[in-house]
Amino acid sequence: MLGRTYEGHNCSIARTLEVVGERWTLLIVRDALLGAQRFDEFQASLGIARNVLSDRLASLVDHEIFERVPYQERPVRHEYRLTTKGRELGLAVVALMQWGDKYEAPDGPPRVARHRGCGGRVAAQLMCARCGRRITRGGMGFEPGPGLFAG
Amino acid sequence: MLGRTYEGHNCSIARTLEVVGERWTLLIVRDALLGAQRFDEFQASLGIARNVLSDRLASLVDHEIFERVPYQERPVRHEYRLTTKGRELGLAVVALMQWGDKYEAPDGPPRVARHRGCGGRVAAQLMCARCGRRITRGGMGFEPGPGLFAG
Repeated sequence: MLGRTYEGHNCSIARTLEVVGERWTLLIVRDALLGAQRFDEFQASLGIARNVLSDRLASLVDHEIFERVPYQERPVRHEYRLTTKGRELGLAVVALMQWGDKYEAPDGPPRVARHRGCGGRVAAQLMCARCGRRITRGGMGFEPGPGLFAG
Repeated sequence: MLGRTYEGHNCSIARTLEVVGERWTLLIVRDALLGAQRFDEFQASLGIARNVLSDRLASLVDHEIFERVPYQERPVRHEYRLTTKGRELGLAVVALMQWGDKYEAPDGPPRVARHRGCGGRVAAQLMCARCGRRITRGGMGFEPGPGLFAG
Protein backbone atom coordinates (compact mmCIF):
# COMPACT_ATOMS: atom_id res chain seq x y z
CA MET A 1 0.00 0.00 0.00
CA LEU A 2 1.11 3.52 -0.66
CA GLY A 3 1.51 5.94 2.21
CA ARG A 4 -1.92 7.14 3.22
CA THR A 5 -1.45 10.81 2.64
CA TYR A 6 -4.46 12.78 1.55
CA GLU A 7 -3.06 13.38 -1.90
CA GLY A 8 -1.98 9.81 -2.39
CA HIS A 9 -5.30 8.55 -1.17
CA ASN A 10 -7.69 10.60 -3.22
CA CYS A 11 -6.15 10.35 -6.66
CA SER A 12 -7.18 8.09 -9.50
CA ILE A 13 -3.59 7.52 -10.52
CA ALA A 14 -2.57 6.42 -7.02
CA ARG A 15 -5.63 4.17 -6.83
CA THR A 16 -4.87 2.66 -10.21
CA LEU A 17 -1.29 1.99 -9.15
CA GLU A 18 -2.65 0.26 -6.03
CA VAL A 19 -4.22 -2.25 -8.42
CA VAL A 20 -1.74 -2.43 -11.31
CA GLY A 21 1.36 -0.69 -9.96
CA GLU A 22 3.35 -3.84 -9.40
CA ARG A 23 5.34 -4.18 -12.61
CA TRP A 24 4.49 -7.77 -13.43
CA THR A 25 0.84 -6.87 -13.35
CA LEU A 26 0.97 -4.62 -16.40
CA LEU A 27 3.17 -7.15 -18.21
CA ILE A 28 0.57 -9.86 -17.49
CA VAL A 29 -2.09 -7.57 -18.97
CA ARG A 30 0.22 -6.94 -21.95
CA ASP A 31 0.55 -10.70 -22.54
CA ALA A 32 -3.21 -11.12 -22.30
CA LEU A 33 -3.69 -8.37 -24.89
CA LEU A 34 -1.21 -10.28 -27.08
CA GLY A 35 -3.39 -13.39 -26.72
CA ALA A 36 -2.13 -15.33 -23.67
CA GLN A 37 -4.86 -17.04 -21.62
CA ARG A 38 -3.30 -19.99 -19.80
CA PHE A 39 -1.08 -20.03 -16.78
CA ASP A 40 1.74 -21.73 -18.68
CA GLU A 41 1.58 -19.19 -21.49
CA PHE A 42 2.00 -16.32 -19.02
CA GLN A 43 4.71 -18.22 -17.21
CA ALA A 44 6.69 -19.00 -20.37
CA SER A 45 6.43 -15.41 -21.59
CA LEU A 46 7.31 -13.72 -18.32
CA GLY A 47 9.74 -16.25 -16.88
CA ILE A 48 8.68 -15.47 -13.32
CA ALA A 49 8.32 -17.90 -10.42
CA ARG A 50 5.06 -19.83 -10.56
CA ASN A 51 4.04 -18.77 -7.06
CA VAL A 52 4.55 -15.10 -7.91
CA LEU A 53 2.50 -15.45 -11.10
CA SER A 54 -0.17 -17.34 -9.21
CA ASP A 55 -0.44 -14.54 -6.62
CA ARG A 56 -0.63 -11.85 -9.29
CA LEU A 57 -3.30 -13.65 -11.28
CA ALA A 58 -5.36 -14.22 -8.13
CA SER A 59 -5.15 -10.54 -7.30
CA LEU A 60 -6.13 -9.59 -10.86
CA VAL A 61 -9.14 -11.90 -10.64
CA ASP A 62 -10.07 -10.30 -7.28
CA HIS A 63 -9.94 -6.88 -8.94
CA GLU A 64 -12.06 -8.15 -11.85
CA ILE A 65 -9.37 -7.50 -14.41
CA PHE A 66 -9.36 -11.18 -15.35
CA GLU A 67 -12.11 -13.74 -15.26
CA ARG A 68 -11.05 -17.30 -14.42
CA VAL A 69 -12.89 -19.68 -16.73
CA PRO A 70 -12.67 -23.50 -16.84
CA TYR A 71 -11.59 -24.82 -20.26
CA GLN A 72 -11.19 -28.50 -19.36
CA GLU A 73 -13.08 -30.85 -17.04
CA ARG A 74 -10.87 -33.74 -15.89
CA PRO A 75 -8.77 -32.46 -14.38
CA VAL A 76 -10.37 -29.04 -14.20
CA ARG A 77 -8.14 -26.41 -15.74
CA HIS A 78 -8.77 -22.69 -15.97
CA GLU A 79 -7.79 -19.94 -18.29
CA TYR A 80 -7.67 -16.23 -17.64
CA ARG A 81 -9.69 -13.91 -19.83
CA LEU A 82 -9.51 -10.15 -19.68
CA THR A 83 -12.76 -8.54 -18.60
CA THR A 84 -13.86 -5.25 -20.13
CA LYS A 85 -12.27 -3.51 -17.15
CA GLY A 86 -9.02 -5.35 -17.89
CA ARG A 87 -9.14 -4.76 -21.62
CA GLU A 88 -9.53 -1.05 -20.96
CA LEU A 89 -6.05 -1.04 -19.41
CA GLY A 90 -4.90 -1.47 -23.02
CA LEU A 91 -4.92 2.28 -23.43
CA ALA A 92 -2.41 2.79 -20.58
CA VAL A 93 -0.38 -0.17 -21.86
CA VAL A 94 -0.18 1.36 -25.35
CA ALA A 95 0.67 4.77 -23.86
CA LEU A 96 3.59 3.19 -21.94
CA MET A 97 4.64 1.23 -25.04
CA GLN A 98 4.62 4.34 -27.18
CA TRP A 99 6.83 6.22 -24.74
CA GLY A 100 9.20 3.25 -24.57
CA ASP A 101 9.25 2.97 -28.37
CA LYS A 102 10.31 6.59 -28.56
CA TYR A 103 12.83 6.74 -25.73
CA GLU A 104 13.96 3.22 -24.84
CA ALA A 105 13.99 1.28 -28.11
CA PRO A 106 17.24 2.03 -29.98
CA ASP A 107 16.59 -0.82 -32.47
CA GLY A 108 13.06 0.32 -33.26
CA PRO A 109 9.75 -0.78 -31.76
CA PRO A 110 9.72 -4.49 -30.83
CA ARG A 111 5.98 -4.58 -31.49
CA VAL A 112 3.60 -2.49 -33.50
CA ALA A 113 -0.06 -1.97 -32.63
CA ARG A 114 -2.28 -1.91 -35.71
CA HIS A 115 -5.89 -1.03 -36.39
CA ARG A 116 -7.66 -4.22 -37.44
CA GLY A 117 -9.90 -2.20 -39.72
CA CYS A 118 -7.38 -0.59 -42.06
CA GLY A 119 -3.98 -1.84 -40.88
CA GLY A 120 -2.80 1.63 -39.82
CA ARG A 121 -0.60 2.21 -36.78
CA VAL A 122 -2.47 2.74 -33.52
CA ALA A 123 -1.46 5.80 -31.52
CA ALA A 124 -2.50 6.82 -28.03
CA GLN A 125 -3.29 10.53 -27.97
CA LEU A 126 -4.71 13.19 -25.74
CA MET A 127 -7.79 14.77 -27.31
CA CYS A 128 -10.17 17.47 -26.22
CA ALA A 129 -13.63 15.96 -25.79
CA ARG A 130 -15.24 19.34 -26.52
CA CYS A 131 -13.45 20.81 -29.55
CA GLY A 132 -11.94 17.54 -30.81
CA ARG A 133 -8.45 19.00 -31.09
CA ARG A 134 -5.39 17.02 -30.23
CA ILE A 135 -3.77 18.27 -27.03
CA THR A 136 -0.25 19.46 -27.65
CA ARG A 137 2.52 20.35 -25.26
CA GLY A 138 1.38 22.59 -22.43
CA GLY A 139 -2.21 22.41 -23.64
CA MET A 140 -3.54 20.61 -20.59
CA GLY A 141 -4.26 21.76 -17.06
CA PHE A 142 -5.72 20.01 -14.02
CA GLU A 143 -8.47 21.21 -11.72
CA PRO A 144 -10.17 19.73 -8.68
CA GLY A 145 -12.95 17.28 -9.56
CA PRO A 146 -16.10 16.24 -7.69
CA GLY A 147 -14.30 13.41 -5.88
CA LEU A 148 -11.50 15.51 -4.41
CA PHE A 149 -13.21 16.57 -1.22
CA ALA A 150 -15.59 13.63 -0.93
CA GLY A 151 -15.39 10.74 1.47
CA MET B 1 15.44 -5.21 -12.65
CA LEU B 2 12.91 -7.49 -14.25
CA GLY B 3 13.84 -11.05 -15.05
CA ARG B 4 15.92 -11.03 -18.19
CA THR B 5 13.73 -13.21 -20.36
CA TYR B 6 13.72 -12.49 -24.06
CA GLU B 7 10.16 -11.24 -23.98
CA GLY B 8 10.70 -9.08 -20.95
CA HIS B 9 13.89 -7.71 -22.36
CA ASN B 10 12.81 -6.70 -25.81
CA CYS B 11 9.55 -4.95 -25.11
CA SER B 12 8.95 -1.23 -24.86
CA ILE B 13 6.48 -1.69 -22.01
CA ALA B 14 8.97 -3.69 -19.95
CA ARG B 15 11.68 -1.13 -20.69
CA THR B 16 9.41 1.72 -19.72
CA LEU B 17 8.54 -0.02 -16.46
CA GLU B 18 12.28 -0.40 -15.80
CA VAL B 19 12.39 3.40 -15.74
CA VAL B 20 9.02 4.38 -14.28
CA GLY B 21 7.66 1.10 -12.88
CA GLU B 22 8.28 1.95 -9.28
CA ARG B 23 4.98 3.41 -8.13
CA TRP B 24 6.31 6.58 -6.55
CA THR B 25 7.96 7.46 -9.82
CA LEU B 26 4.72 7.99 -11.71
CA LEU B 27 3.26 9.87 -8.74
CA ILE B 28 6.29 12.18 -8.75
CA VAL B 29 5.68 12.80 -12.47
CA ARG B 30 1.99 13.40 -11.68
CA ASP B 31 2.93 16.03 -9.09
CA ALA B 32 5.29 17.68 -11.54
CA LEU B 33 2.49 17.83 -14.13
CA LEU B 34 0.35 19.46 -11.43
CA GLY B 35 3.07 22.08 -10.93
CA ALA B 36 5.43 20.81 -8.22
CA GLN B 37 9.10 21.68 -8.76
CA ARG B 38 10.82 21.73 -5.40
CA PHE B 39 11.89 18.85 -3.21
CA ASP B 40 9.68 20.01 -0.33
CA GLU B 41 6.64 20.30 -2.60
CA PHE B 42 7.05 16.69 -3.74
CA GLN B 43 7.73 15.60 -0.18
CA ALA B 44 4.66 17.35 1.25
CA SER B 45 2.42 15.98 -1.48
CA LEU B 46 3.66 12.39 -1.37
CA GLY B 47 4.48 12.06 2.31
CA ILE B 48 7.35 9.68 1.62
CA ALA B 49 10.67 9.47 3.41
CA ARG B 50 13.12 12.14 2.26
CA ASN B 51 15.81 9.58 1.40
CA VAL B 52 13.39 7.60 -0.78
CA LEU B 53 12.27 10.74 -2.60
CA SER B 54 15.88 11.82 -3.00
CA ASP B 55 16.78 8.45 -4.60
CA ARG B 56 13.80 8.56 -6.95
CA LEU B 57 14.49 12.11 -8.08
CA ALA B 58 18.17 11.28 -8.69
CA SER B 59 17.14 8.30 -10.81
CA LEU B 60 14.65 10.43 -12.75
CA VAL B 61 17.39 13.00 -13.41
CA ASP B 62 19.69 10.16 -14.59
CA HIS B 63 16.99 9.04 -16.99
CA GLU B 64 16.51 12.61 -18.23
CA ILE B 65 12.91 12.78 -17.11
CA PHE B 66 13.72 15.71 -14.85
CA GLU B 67 16.30 18.41 -15.18
CA ARG B 68 17.83 19.69 -11.94
CA VAL B 69 18.10 23.46 -12.13
CA PRO B 70 19.47 25.86 -9.48
CA TYR B 71 16.95 28.48 -8.41
CA GLN B 72 18.90 30.07 -5.55
CA GLU B 73 22.60 30.81 -4.99
CA ARG B 74 23.46 30.98 -1.27
CA PRO B 75 22.91 28.30 -0.31
CA VAL B 76 22.48 26.70 -3.72
CA ARG B 77 19.06 25.11 -4.06
CA HIS B 78 17.70 23.17 -6.99
CA GLU B 79 14.32 22.55 -8.47
CA TYR B 80 13.22 19.72 -10.70
CA ARG B 81 11.72 20.52 -14.08
CA LEU B 82 10.20 17.96 -16.37
CA THR B 83 12.08 17.57 -19.64
CA THR B 84 10.17 16.95 -22.86
CA LYS B 85 10.78 13.23 -22.32
CA GLY B 86 9.27 13.53 -18.85
CA ARG B 87 6.35 15.66 -19.95
CA GLU B 88 5.49 13.05 -22.57
CA LEU B 89 4.77 10.59 -19.74
CA GLY B 90 1.68 12.76 -19.21
CA LEU B 91 -0.16 10.63 -21.76
CA ALA B 92 0.38 7.43 -19.77
CA VAL B 93 -0.42 9.30 -16.54
CA VAL B 94 -3.73 10.53 -17.99
CA ALA B 95 -4.50 7.03 -19.33
CA LEU B 96 -4.00 5.57 -15.83
CA MET B 97 -6.03 8.41 -14.31
CA GLN B 98 -8.88 7.86 -16.71
CA TRP B 99 -9.05 4.14 -15.90
CA GLY B 100 -8.98 4.94 -12.17
CA ASP B 101 -11.68 7.60 -12.60
CA LYS B 102 -13.88 4.98 -14.22
CA TYR B 103 -13.22 2.00 -11.97
CA GLU B 104 -11.70 3.19 -8.70
CA ALA B 105 -13.33 6.55 -7.96
CA PRO B 106 -16.75 5.96 -6.37
CA ASP B 107 -17.05 9.65 -5.41
CA GLY B 108 -16.22 10.90 -8.88
CA PRO B 109 -12.88 11.98 -10.34
CA PRO B 110 -10.65 13.73 -7.80
CA ARG B 111 -9.11 15.76 -10.61
CA VAL B 112 -10.18 16.74 -14.07
CA ALA B 113 -7.80 17.36 -16.97
CA ARG B 114 -8.91 20.24 -19.17
CA HIS B 115 -7.83 21.62 -22.51
CA ARG B 116 -6.35 25.07 -21.90
CA GLY B 117 -7.66 26.22 -25.26
CA CYS B 118 -11.39 25.67 -24.87
CA GLY B 119 -11.84 24.28 -21.34
CA GLY B 120 -13.10 20.89 -22.57
CA ARG B 121 -12.26 17.65 -20.80
CA VAL B 122 -9.11 15.94 -21.96
CA ALA B 123 -9.42 12.28 -22.88
CA ALA B 124 -6.72 9.77 -23.72
CA GLN B 125 -7.78 7.72 -26.72
CA LEU B 126 -6.46 5.14 -29.13
CA MET B 127 -6.63 6.43 -32.68
CA CYS B 128 -5.65 5.00 -36.01
CA ALA B 129 -2.86 7.10 -37.51
CA ARG B 130 -3.92 6.09 -41.03
CA CYS B 131 -7.72 6.40 -41.18
CA GLY B 132 -8.13 8.69 -38.17
CA ARG B 133 -10.82 6.50 -36.60
CA ARG B 134 -11.00 5.94 -32.91
CA ILE B 135 -10.02 2.38 -31.98
CA THR B 136 -12.86 0.58 -30.26
CA ARG B 137 -12.93 -2.69 -28.39
CA GLY B 138 -11.16 -5.50 -30.22
CA GLY B 139 -10.05 -3.11 -32.94
CA MET B 140 -6.35 -3.41 -32.23
CA GLY B 141 -3.83 -6.16 -32.92
CA PHE B 142 -0.09 -6.43 -32.35
CA GLU B 143 2.56 -7.57 -34.76
CA PRO B 144 6.34 -7.91 -34.52
CA GLY B 145 8.18 -4.64 -35.15
CA PRO B 146 11.69 -3.91 -36.45
CA GLY B 147 13.21 -4.01 -32.98
CA LEU B 148 11.94 -7.47 -32.04
CA PHE B 149 14.80 -9.50 -33.44
CA ALA B 150 17.48 -6.84 -33.25
CA GLY B 151 20.38 -6.68 -30.82
